[in-house]
Amino acid sequence: MIDHTRFLSEAGRKMQQSEIRKMGTLLAETRDVVSFAPGYPDPTTFASREFADIATQLLLGGDRHVLQYLPTRGLKPLLETIIGILSARGVATTLENLLVTTGSQQGLDLLARILLNPGDVVLVELPSYTGAITAFRNVQARLVGVRQERDGLALDDLEQVTARLAAEGRKPRVLYVVPNFQNPTGLLIGREKRARLLEWAARHDALIIEDDPYCDLYFEDVATAADTRPIKADDVEDRVIYLSSFSKTLAPGFRVAWMAAPAVLAAHIEIAKQAADLCTAALPQHMVYEACRRGLLDRQVPILRRHYQHKRDVMERALREAFGTTLTWPAPRGGFFLWASLPEGIDAERMLPLAVRHGVIYVAGSAFFVDGTGANLMRLTFATPPPERIVEGVKRLAAAVQEALSTETAARS
Amino acid sequence: MIDHTRFLSEAGRKMQQSEIRKMGTLLAETRDVVSFAPGYPDPTTFASREFADIATQLLLGGDRHVLQYLPTRGLKPLLETIIGILSARGVATTLENLLVTTGSQQGLDLLARILLNPGDVVLVELPSYTGAITAFRNVQARLVGVRQERDGLALDDLEQVTARLAAEGRKPRVLYVVPNFQNPTGLLIGREKRARLLEWAARHDALIIEDDPYCDLYFEDVATAADTRPIKADDVEDRVIYLSSFSKTLAPGFRVAWMAAPAVLAAHIEIAKQAADLCTAALPQHMVYEACRRGLLDRQVPILRRHYQHKRDVMERALREAFGTTLTWPAPRGGFFLWASLPEGIDAERMLPLAVRHGVIYVAGSAFFVDGTGANLMRLTFATPPPERIVEGVKRLAAAVQEALSTETAARS
Repeated sequence: MIDHTRFLSEAGRKMQQSEIRKMGTLLAETRDVVSFAPGYPDPTTFASREFADIATQLLLGGDRHVLQYLPTRGLKPLLETIIGILSARGVATTLENLLVTTGSQQGLDLLARILLNPGDVVLVELPSYTGAITAFRNVQARLVGVRQERDGLALDDLEQVTARLAAEGRKPRVLYVVPNFQNPTGLLIGREKRARLLEWAARHDALIIEDDPYCDLYFEDVATAADTRPIKADDVEDRVIYLSSFSKTLAPGFRVAWMAAPAVLAAHIEIAKQAADLCTAALPQHMVYEACRRGLLDRQVPILRRHYQHKRDVMERALREAFGTTLTWPAPRGGFFLWASLPEGIDAERMLPLAVRHGVIYVAGSAFFVDGTGANLMRLTFATPPPERIVEGVKRLAAAVQEALSTETAARS
Repeated sequence: MIDHTRFLSEAGRKMQQSEIRKMGTLLAETRDVVSFAPGYPDPTTFASREFADIATQLLLGGDRHVLQYLPTRGLKPLLETIIGILSARGVATTLENLLVTTGSQQGLDLLARILLNPGDVVLVELPSYTGAITAFRNVQARLVGVRQERDGLALDDLEQVTARLAAEGRKPRVLYVVPNFQNPTGLLIGREKRARLLEWAARHDALIIEDDPYCDLYFEDVATAADTRPIKADDVEDRVIYLSSFSKTLAPGFRVAWMAAPAVLAAHIEIAKQAADLCTAALPQHMVYEACRRGLLDRQVPILRRHYQHKRDVMERALREAFGTTLTWPAPRGGFFLWASLPEGIDAERMLPLAVRHGVIYVAGSAFFVDGTGANLMRLTFATPPPERIVEGVKRLAAAVQEALSTETAARS
């Protein structure tokens, strides 16, 4: 057989496997492992019965186009529904701005391709979502990190980074942010700060990519809908490209997400999407539309808020009990993730095989940092496992950390 | 508002809209138009009732993972089913070779990205499938055309083109072919010729991308399953990447297709797919798997063969009646398309607005040629419209051609 690696393009050689997807594979291959790794929604929340009803109605309803190709931009009634969803979030759009995408991951991939030349600078949060990092790296963009603080992106660091780039004769083309319950930190960008980001973009003539899959999933004890108002809502200069999704609210198995972009860019994204997959699957788009039309989405969202808030409580309580002050984290105010700091000297990636031996996995924090830091951090999701498995997983994690600490101490002495 | 075009990357600027998708949009915007343009399957053939049953069973069956994320490679039982489908076509594969893709279009896009550097030479048939042309152009590949004859790709031209490239110090990296009932010509590559293509690839150290969505849809009056044996079936050196799909047999609305590639390349394609859409939608994959398991696919395929053969008959008869010898075409032996030559001097693209006025659309042939030829050709699909609309559309087309001819004659005199 011939050696096929020499047929790889430069881009093909450079593409990197997602750490999170690797964890997913690991999970599939091993048996009794509690997974805090991939941030999958809790499957017990999926409205399977209603979706069965919707599917039956659609497939027996006589309109066989539910199984046909669709326009690349998406199913028109669904796009019109999305206009309404965005309007409720304070974002005004028309059909010219919108596209349905095959998950938000496709949106990020298409944006990377139509916006970024090799070497173009993209600013990302430290840490940032790995799926976006990969999409930007795949077009050989240069990723530069901006520090975060308790209310998200640090404005002083943003200015310093921008100034440092200017000194090199470079300017950022795009700032990528996950403003609401960020993946991986769970942080929320403060309301006043959002306006500052728009000012920054105008001053430096940059675009903002606002990736917002979790906005509906705020925890009512510590956050409100007003806290999640998209940056895009106040975007008078039309500098923000906004992505959101039905994956975290209805179900990921549809792969139905969307993007709102300036009309000129949306037209180019449509062309890029034609070549990427022609269109997003029709049956899922029809099902999602129908779920919205019937009010299922509106009924689901408050249930999900309480559901994930409860699971956050379960995880935080278990962590406090098992770790005392050994582990610290910013309190999650929404979304799927808890971002934990291990004691100094414990490397989350190096500890992973040990954790697997103890029957628990997580995503090592370093995967989310474009600057090589984050060794003692880890992302834990409370979204996916049932409460009793969260408790069990935390115990295992504590045992793993205990063992890592004693090895560490032994090594030092 | 700011000018957004300056934010486009080089790649983004260069991407071109698909002519076929443009036609689809045109179709949606106008009223009584018979569309011979996009090659959509006939929606009356979709097994909606069985799919309703399948969806209900899956969604009420208690396994909520039918709505969850899936591994990037695809649903394992579906991949195992695909191994069986390929085996029946004479192609031996293992899970290491396979990926489910979001339509074959995604397969082409991912291959372009992992295999081709800007300027790399890809050989394509003259004419070739526009979706592939676009995917290759999007990575700035250099597309070079190879002439076709009645039994597909002309071997003498293939050798001449290769020699001409060698004289420039260039060699083709990839040969892209649609061997069975090619889009747009409907041609079939001869059985003996397929072996010659493998020899050519070995001699010139190239890969072959074999795109095979129509293989099951041969017309039993003029072709057999043996005529459609994939090139991949005899690929001892593992130089062929094979793509196929459920879109033309079960339904396009699932966007479930697959690719069989050398294991090393499949691993890179998986990484590229992670960044492109994480995974193909779960519910459609489960539904397609279930359709295979229940024997629905096996039951559908012979029905589809007869169905499309009948519609080909309707179109050919109508064309003969309406055009006499004014229009010529190679007899379609399978698939969805009839490839018609207009009289010299009639430009199919220029004639299109006239055709629209007469209430009929097609795809102008030039869209399929990478060398700027094909002006008097057009692709007509008999797959999508009902038989009576085929007859009506052909009449309209004849009226349009008649008018174009008289204008042409008037202009000359």
